[in-house]
Amino acid sequence: MIFTAYILDVLTDSVYPARITLGDGVFKEIVPINVTEETKIDVKGLLLPGFIDSHIHIESSMLTPAQFAKIAVRHGTTSVVCDPHEIANVAGIEGIEFMIDNASTVPFNFYFSAPSCVPATSFETAGCVLDSSDIEYLLKKEEIVALGEMMNFPGVLSGEEEVIKKLELARKYKKPIDGHAPLLSGKNLDKYLEQYIVTDHECSNFAEAIEKKQKGMKIMVRDGSSAKNMEALFDFSQRLAHLKNQDSFGIIPTEVLERRIHSPIFDFIVSDDKHPNDLIHGHLDKSVKKAANLGVDIIKAIGMVTINPATHYGLDAGVIVTGAKADFIIIDNLTDFNILKTYIGGECVFDGENVLFEVPEVESKNTINTSKKSSEDFEIYYDGEECEVNVIKCFNGVLLTERATTKLYCREGKVQSDIYEDVLRISVVERYGLENIANAFIKGFGLKKGALASSIAHDSHNIIVIGYDTEMMARAVNKIIDNKGGIAVVSEDFEDSLSLPIAGLMTNEDAYEVASKLNILHKMCSALGCKLDSPFMTMAFMALLVIPSLKISDLGLFDVDNFEFIDVIKN
Amino acid sequence: MIFTAYILDVLTDSVYPARITLGDGVFKEIVPINVTEETKIDVKGLLLPGFIDSHIHIESSMLTPAQFAKIAVRHGTTSVVCDPHEIANVAGIEGIEFMIDNASTVPFNFYFSAPSCVPATSFETAGCVLDSSDIEYLLKKEEIVALGEMMNFPGVLSGEEEVIKKLELARKYKKPIDGHAPLLSGKNLDKYLEQYIVTDHECSNFAEAIEKKQKGMKIMVRDGSSAKNMEALFDFSQRLAHLKNQDSFGIIPTEVLERRIHSPIFDFIVSDDKHPNDLIHGHLDKSVKKAANLGVDIIKAIGMVTINPATHYGLDAGVIVTGAKADFIIIDNLTDFNILKTYIGGECVFDGENVLFEVPEVESKNTINTSKKSSEDFEIYYDGEECEVNVIKCFNGVLLTERATTKLYCREGKVQSDIYEDVLRISVVERYGLENIANAFIKGFGLKKGALASSIAHDSHNIIVIGYDTEMMARAVNKIIDNKGGIAVVSEDFEDSLSLPIAGLMTNEDAYEVASKLNILHKMCSALGCKLDSPFMTMAFMALLVIPSLKISDLGLFDVDNFEFIDVIKN
Repeated sequence: MIFTAYILDVLTDSVYPARITLGDGVFKEIVPINVTEETKIDVKGLLLPGFIDSHIHIESSMLTPAQFAKIAVRHGTTSVVCDPHEIANVAGIEGIEFMIDNASTVPFNFYFSAPSCVPATSFETAGCVLDSSDIEYLLKKEEIVALGEMMNFPGVLSGEEEVIKKLELARKYKKPIDGHAPLLSGKNLDKYLEQYIVTDHECSNFAEAIEKKQKGMKIMVRDGSSAKNMEALFDFSQRLAHLKNQDSFGIIPTEVLERRIHSPIFDFIVSDDKHPNDLIHGHLDKSVKKAANLGVDIIKAIGMVTINPATHYGLDAGVIVTGAKADFIIIDNLTDFNILKTYIGGECVFDGENVLFEVPEVESKNTINTSKKSSEDFEIYYDGEECEVNVIKCFNGVLLTERATTKLYCREGKVQSDIYEDVLRISVVERYGLENIANAFIKGFGLKKGALASSIAHDSHNIIVIGYDTEMMARAVNKIIDNKGGIAVVSEDFEDSLSLPIAGLMTNEDAYEVASKLNILHKMCSALGCKLDSPFMTMAFMALLVIPSLKISDLGLFDVDNFEFIDVIKN
Repeated sequence: MIFTAYILDVLTDSVYPARITLGDGVFKEIVPINVTEETKIDVKGLLLPGFIDSHIHIESSMLTPAQFAKIAVRHGTTSVVCDPHEIANVAGIEGIEFMIDNASTVPFNFYFSAPSCVPATSFETAGCVLDSSDIEYLLKKEEIVALGEMMNFPGVLSGEEEVIKKLELARKYKKPIDGHAPLLSGKNLDKYLEQYIVTDHECSNFAEAIEKKQKGMKIMVRDGSSAKNMEALFDFSQRLAHLKNQDSFGIIPTEVLERRIHSPIFDFIVSDDKHPNDLIHGHLDKSVKKAANLGVDIIKAIGMVTINPATHYGLDAGVIVTGAKADFIIIDNLTDFNILKTYIGGECVFDGENVLFEVPEVESKNTINTSKKSSEDFEIYYDGEECEVNVIKCFNGVLLTERATTKLYCREGKVQSDIYEDVLRISVVERYGLENIANAFIKGFGLKKGALASSIAHDSHNIIVIGYDTEMMARAVNKIIDNKGGIAVVSEDFEDSLSLPIAGLMTNEDAYEVASKLNILHKMCSALGCKLDSPFMTMAFMALLVIPSLKISDLGLFDVDNFEFIDVIKN
C-alpha cells in the first residue's frame, strides 16, 4: 500500500508530509514530499505512532487480553506492557501463560513483566507463590520484557534473600526492573535504587516525583481509573515556583524556565488500572489530550506514550520510520484528538467504526475452590449484650482506610450490624481450598440492605463480601461460587451478577457488555443505599494489606500500621 | 567528603542546591536543601556531570590516551568513547590493546569501540587487517562498548559477507553500532539502517541530519579540529523555516514551534578528531558554550555531552545521582563556562591549575619497517621533453580534492616540479615491509622549497611526503624513519621534526609540548611558502581513498570517482 499523509514525528518534534509505503507488516519506505497547491494528500488527518501503555494490569479491565485489545485499538493503543500480577496471585505461572497465549490470538502487541511480588504479603492466602526460580523461568521468555513492579520495598530495604535474588535475576537477563514505591524518600529511596529499580508509577505529588526523577528514576505519570496523578505532576505553576525557588541565585533566566516548563521532565503516561466502564470511553488518547490541556507540549505528551516507553523497554514500536513495524493511528487533529483509524503491523484493525478482528472463545478452568456458605459462616459471636469492636472506616475513592471503634449490640450471642451508624459486616472467604473465613465490620459503604460480593480482592483475590445481614452475604458469596468468580449484588428485592470465570477476574465478553452489566450492578448498589462511586473497587482494596490503616484478609483483621492481626472484638 | 553546592541537574532540567556526600568513588548521598540568607554554600560555582565525548579518535591528538586524559580533564572531560581506528590500521589488535592498557594507567574513563573497517580499502597496504573473528575477540571485551563507525557503506549496501558478519556480531554481543554515512540518503540510507546502525557523526547539513533523525538515527553533532558541523546543524532560523515549510497546514502553532527550536532534536556533541594545538585551548567545554551561543538551551547542550551519551552507551556517567560514579566538574557560571575543577571517581584530578595525576612512561615498539630512501626513489621518469600529468588539486581545510592535468618539463628523463604553477611532488612510502613507493604530483600546497613528511596518512598511515625536490623528500622521509614515525619539515635552510614513536601516530609527551612543536613546524611550512592552515592534516587526508576525487596510496594514484588506479603520466 502506498499513500501520502502528514506524519507527526516524535523523533524530530515536527509534522511533515510524506509518501508512505507499507508492506510485510512494516513501513517499507517513507519519503518526505513537498506539498504544493496541486498535491493531493491521501490521508485526511495526521499519522501518529500507535500508543503504548507501559504499565497496566489488564485484569482490572475484567477483560481477557484479546477483549482488552479489541476495545483498546478504538482508542489508538497498539501496545501494552502489562504486569499479570493479579492472575499470578490466583493461578501462578499457569495464569501468566494463559495471558500470553490469549494475547497471541489477536493482532495487538502485548509485552509482559514478570510479577515480582506474589503473594503480596505473608498475611493472606493466595492461590500461588512465585519464587525466584519461577521468576527466572519467566524472565527467560521473550514475551517478558521486565521484572514487574517491586512493591515489596520493605523486603528490598531489609535485603530479604528471595527479593534480592529476583532483582539479581532481572539484571542477569538484562530486563529492566519496574518500581512501586509510594512516598518512599531520602535514604530509603536511595537504598531501593541501589537495586537498579528504574521506574515508578506511584508518584502522587510533585515533590515526590521530582525527588525520584532527580535520583535517576523514570517517572510514569498515572492516569488510570483508580489513581489519577496528572494534575499533580503536570502542575506547571508549581513547577515554575519550584524551579525559581531552587535556583535562588537566578542561575537560569526566567524566560528560559518559562519556556522549558512546557516540556515535561517526566517520562511516560500510563494507566496502571483501567476499568471497563472507563475503558469504553478512552484510554491514552484521553490522557494525551488531558496532558495537553494541562499545558504539556502535545508532541511531548505523545512522546510519553510512544517513543519513550518503546526506547525504555526496547520495543519495535513508537516511531514511524522505515523498517519499523507499521503500528500507527490516524487522528483528526491535535485539538479534538479523535482516533479515526488504527493500524497494527500494517493492517487496519479499527476503521473508525468497527474493530476488524475477532476474539476467539476461551476455555476457562474453575479457580474457585471453596464449599457453599451459610449465614452461620459469617456470624461473629459474643457472650453479652453489647461489645466494642474495631471497625474498618473507608472513604469514597480512597485506598487508605482508618481504624475506628464502635459499640454493637448482640442478639442470641451474635454481634449485630448497625444501620443507623452505617456499620456493616465484611468478610473474606478463602477460595483456594483451605476454607478460611475472616469476619469483621466496616463503616462507609452505606448499604441499607442486601450484600455485595466479589472474587476481585487485591492482591490474593479471595472472595470478599460486604452486607447488612449474614443471610444475604451467604447468598452473594454462593452466587460468586456458582459463577466461577465475578461480582454480585443480592437483596430481598433483586439480584444480579457479572460472571468472571477466568481466574475469577476476567471474562471473555465484550467490553461494552461488561461495562453495561457493571453499570447495572452499580445502580443496584445505589438503590440499596450505597454512597460510593465504585463500590466494587473500594471493596476490592479492603483486602490490600500493604495500604494503611486497617484491612482484612482471609486470616483476619489486619492492622497495617503495626503489621499485625488484631481482634475484631476489643477487650 | 561532605559539602553543599548548586547542582545542574540534566534529569530535571534544573539547578538545585544540595548537600553532597562523596565516598568510595561514588555520590554516597545527595540531599536537596533549602537556601536561606544564612545558608553557606561551600562550592562557589555550579556542579555539572563530567563531559563525555562519545566519538573521538584519540590518535588525532598525537597523544597517548594517558596524555590525552591529562589535557582533557582541564576542559571538564571525564569520559570518552574512542575508536582506535588509526592504531588498528598500523598495529591491529596489539595496537588496540596498547590503547586499552595505556588508558588504564590514569584516572579517566576510557571506553572503546571495535574498529569495523581495517583496512579502509583494499587499494592500499595497511599494517593490519581486522576480520570478523578479530572483531568478535574485541566485542567480548568489557572495555569495548560498541562496534566502531561502519564507514564501508558500499559494503553494507552490497551485503559484503565480512561486513555483514561484523554487524551481526555486534548485535549478538548487544553492543550498539556506530555509523559513518556522509550524505547517504533515500533508499540507500534505508538499507544501511536495516543493519541497526544507530549513530551518525558525518552530517554536514541540516537536511541531511533531519533525514537521518527522522529515520531513527541518533545524530552526533561534530565540533572537531577538522570538521565543524555545529553552525549547520544548530541553525535555528533554518530549522524554524523547515518546520513551517513542512507543516504547511499549520498543524502546530507558530509559538509552539518557536519555543521548541531551543531544544535541540539532535543527540550528542562529539569532536571526532581533536588536534593537540586545539586541544590545549578547549574540548567539549568550548563546544557547549558555542552551542549555547548558537541558541541551544544550555542545559540541553550539556545533556548532549552527559546523560545522552551515557544512556546510549550504557555508561556509569553523565548524571549526578546517589550511587553513581562521582565524575563531576565545577564551572564558574553558565555564561563564562570556565572549568574550575574536575573530579573523577570522587577524586579531584584537576584543581583549576594543575592536573593531579602522573602519566607513566611508555615503551614503544618501532612500527616503521622500511629502508632509508634516496632521491632516486621519488623520481618519475619520462622519455621526452615534456609530458601531460594527472595532478591532485587540494584546497585549504577541505578533504575533497579535484583532478587536474598539467604539462611538466622533463630533464634527463625525469619529470620536474613546476614552482610557477605550484605543482609539487607527492609520494607515499609503504612502511610495513613491502618497500612500495608511489609517486605523483599535487597542486595547492604552495611550497617553494624543501619538503614535509608524516607517518600520519589516513587510514593506512604509510609515510606521506610532499616536496619541491626529491633530495629534500628523501631527507624528510629518512627523518621520519630515524624518529620511528612522526612529522618533519626539511629544507636547505632549516629542519625540524616531531617524533611520534608510538605506532608512528602518537607520543607520550605532554600536550603543551606537542602543540608547541607542532606550531613551530607549521611556522616553518609557512616560511617555505605553504599557504595551508594545517598542512600536515591536509597532507594526511591525501591518502584517504574514500573521499573524492583524486588521492594516492602506496600502490599508486587513485581515482576515487571510478574506484580505480590511474597513471600519473597521461598518454
